[in-house]
Amino acid sequence: MDFAGLEQRLARLEDDRAIRDLKARYLRACDTKDVETLRDTLLPEGAVIAYDGFPPFAGREAFVEVYRAMGCAPGVFDIHHGANGVITFETPERACGAWSLLFHSINLANRTLTLMGVEYEDLYVKQDGRWWIAETRSRRHSCLIHSVDERGSVTVSTMGEPPATFG
Amino acid sequence: MDFAGLEQRLARLEDDRAIRDLKARYLRACDTKDVETLRDTLLPEGAVIAYDGFPPFAGREAFVEVYRAMGCAPGVFDIHHGANGVITFETPERACGAWSLLFHSINLANRTLTLMGVEYEDLYVKQDGRWWIAETRSRRHSCLIHSVDERGSVTVSTMGEPPATFG
Amino acid sequence: MDFAGLEQRLARLEDDRAIRDLKARYLRACDTKDVETLRDTLLPEGAVIAYDGFPPFAGREAFVEVYRAMGCAPGVFDIHHGANGVITFETPERACGAWSLLFHSINLANRTLTLMGVEYEDLYVKQDGRWWIAETRSRRHSCLIHSVDERGSVTVSTMGEPPATFG
Repeated sequence: MDFAGLEQRLARLEDDRAIRDLKARYLRACDTKDVETLRDTLLPEGAVIAYDGFPPFAGREAFVEVYRAMGCAPGVFDIHHGANGVITFETPERACGAWSLLFHSINLANRTLTLMGVEYEDLYVKQDGRWWIAETRSRRHSCLIHSVDERGSVTVSTMGEPPATFG
Repeated sequence: MDFAGLEQRLARLEDDRAIRDLKARYLRACDTKDVETLRDTLLPEGAVIAYDGFPPFAGREAFVEVYRAMGCAPGVFDIHHGANGVITFETPERACGAWSLLFHSINLANRTLTLMGVEYEDLYVKQDGRWWIAETRSRRHSCLIHSVDERGSVTVSTMGEPPATFG
Repeated sequence: MDFAGLEQRLARLEDDRAIRDLKARYLRACDTKDVETLRDTLLPEGAVIAYDGFPPFAGREAFVEVYRAMGCAPGVFDIHHGANGVITFETPERACGAWSLLFHSINLANRTLTLMGVEYEDLYVKQDGRWWIAETRSRRHSCLIHSVDERGSVTVSTMGEPPATFG
């Protein structure tokens, strides 16, 4: 009978759950324009945020400012839904995550509708008794953009490969 | 060595799993028009169902009747997919849940296509040895409605804010 | 105090997690055209793969070849996102799974956009110390197909019931 082994296995499952909840809070904050929750999911010092179509972000605060300017602009209605999550532990305090993202965005200023399939590769670390997103990288693998004219007519402007830049 | 503490932590994970499965069964029943399963996920007495765009429902049976009339109508093809789920326990028998919903509906009678991003705030309770949805509230934060004419041409009729009423 | 009982409950949660990760790897491999990972999720001998709209597949290798020809064709950009997953154990080494799938496909050769809501019914078995997809059946319950002409104009060609054959 190995009580300590059992406790380690249980802690692993709790950590897996905590990391998935962390990612869920990040994604929900993207949609609800909850800047403080978004910031709080990311490692305060040294976070790597490398999103396909964006220039690299110099850490958490730089990312949060871009999010505030773009994601929180009036007339932006975003959907960030995570799926297919797999968490792999390197150590009890360090884990990788793979997630698929369904991204949909209505942009009233541009009159565009964007649907993308995105893959995230994340690194999570446990510090100060909780988990953080330490690194997060994305790759867009499917992109569909419609333009909507003033009468509501729809034209596909991008179909398949994503454009070089996101914005 | 604290065997009882370990058992409590394990039970918490089992309850988290059971609540997520409960919500999954609810959402799947919405799509497969499985009225009995839908009813069985909701607390028999006193359930609060407050869905954005609908008038308040007077308990489980009132909701089930509206679902049967609207969701099960011929020519309705719905997708209710949950994502970004986070369960937070208040007590061992009471927990809150946050879920993001991707809702897509094809309505042949109206010739409309509706895509929505929705946020749920739920309350779950454990009674009689199982979990129930005791309260569920939704808020639509992204809405896109297309109309399809008889030749198949598509026009956007709603883009961004959802209309005041759902139906 | 029942140490063995606790260990069995913990192993059940670990198995539930492992099966969900298996399905996530399968679905991600579909999108990233990772044929080797796709193959590795399916039981080597005797796998049943019965997907709505396709003729029956004669085992894993037959399925992988069809996937390679169709899913990996140039100009195909797919999204397979799992949701609403529920795993039910029959024995410690055999479990059923219900999953909802959001399927979106851009096909540049056909100039079509396909969105489908699909339900999977799976059987998983544990062999050689790991889980495998032994049986997987799908049913499409919502189907929307757009055709995109050379100027980008969009016409709905299928709305509601899926066509008899997938391809």
